[in-house]
Amino acid sequence: MPHPEKAVVLVSGGLDSATALAWARAEGFACYALSFAYGQRHQAELQAARRVVQAIGVVEHQVMPLALDAIGGSALTDSAIAVPDYAEQPGIPVTYVPARNTIFLSIALGWAEVLAARHLVIGVNAVDYSGYPDCRPAFIQVFTHLAQLATRSGVEGQALQVHAPLLHLKKAEIIQQGLVYHIDYGLTVSCYQADSAGRACGRCDSCVLRAQGFVAAGVADPTRYVSDTICT
Amino acid sequence: MPHPEKAVVLVSGGLDSATALAWARAEGFACYALSFAYGQRHQAELQAARRVVQAIGVVEHQVMPLALDAIGGSALTDSAIAVPDYAEQPGIPVTYVPARNTIFLSIALGWAEVLAARHLVIGVNAVDYSGYPDCRPAFIQVFTHLAQLATRSGVEGQALQVHAPLLHLKKAEIIQQGLVYHIDYGLTVSCYQADSAGRACGRCDSCVLRAQGFVAAGVADPTRYVSDTICT
Repeated sequence: MPHPEKAVVLVSGGLDSATALAWARAEGFACYALSFAYGQRHQAELQAARRVVQAIGVVEHQVMPLALDAIGGSALTDSAIAVPDYAEQPGIPVTYVPARNTIFLSIALGWAEVLAARHLVIGVNAVDYSGYPDCRPAFIQVFTHLAQLATRSGVEGQALQVHAPLLHLKKAEIIQQGLVYHIDYGLTVSCYQADSAGRACGRCDSCVLRAQGFVAAGVADPTRYVSDTICT
Repeated sequence: MPHPEKAVVLVSGGLDSATALAWARAEGFACYALSFAYGQRHQAELQAARRVVQAIGVVEHQVMPLALDAIGGSALTDSAIAVPDYAEQPGIPVTYVPARNTIFLSIALGWAEVLAARHLVIGVNAVDYSGYPDCRPAFIQVFTHLAQLATRSGVEGQALQVHAPLLHLKKAEIIQQGLVYHIDYGLTVSCYQADSAGRACGRCDSCVLRAQGFVAAGVADPTRYVSDTICT
């Protein structure tokens, strides 16, 4: 394909967004990866994002600073709020970062306009997820509508698409899909409170959903943990 | 009102957002002003925003850095693209900052969630404006829908409202409304390329629409211009 379509892909450094990026590459998109230094608890996530984009291959990778810690309100951006251990509870957990996916997709939309890209890719998942409101299919659908109205390309009649290729997959299915793409999940960090070496706590929601996914997929878990006790 | 409702108000330092803030105060909202250092050409705009919030009165004012100049694509954030003189032309001008209002409203939404505020206020205007897609009524309507889906408060059934009190007003009507609120428009800077002292060029779209507004409102224009030649 001499002139592939451009896509802006949100890459966090975790398992899901790595798989979404690999999907976009497999679909033939010229990928522009976008990560955010948004005041998250640890830098291991961004180091993982850099490893992931290097391994999978992108045209450009932007790591944009974003002072979400100035508004706080989440265990992920406010060190005064502890990250809880995994628990199957209803409701939205304290690790929810207010409006995070809306903000990330909006900035991706701005970059897509500048690049004349008509595709955004986000690795949200509505099955094995933490109950965040901005991971649901209806959210993606309405954001797509907004993107048409908000942009030059939308006004000029070029439909902009938001791809969420993992939306309806279980965590084990995401992992199996990623292995088809030969992703080395050892490069990724999903933990909400990884240490500076990128080792996972094995206790938070994100760690437990990830570890359960590897078990269900029947695949060895390459994650490096702080201790040997994993709460699956 | 002992416990006024909280509102997050976007304040740029220009005439419109100052009027929107004064409207919110007049409506009795406890106002949380949000401005962005987004790589715009001049700092005079942010100095004006600080003067405006001080004069009108807010509970808190955040000036958030936002690296939109990293993605470029607009005469307002990329010094390689010149700001053109005013011209009545169809289409979206080069001063359009890709997805700016979507990005600003998204971050305002995040702060509103943290504050437990159910109101966002934005001074967009669909009458005497520069033809930006993200200033239209349909954009505001769909963003409101998105806000319900994207947030904890929306999920928990608390309707979030996006107020755009200037949406259907002519520039002259905005100015007349502002004078009812006793706004000193001399504090505001609307120019796309004001100098470091906050003096307006008198030539760009924003200057000309503003100057025409003062003429139509029959009100003396308090704007400080670089030269005496204004292109009304």
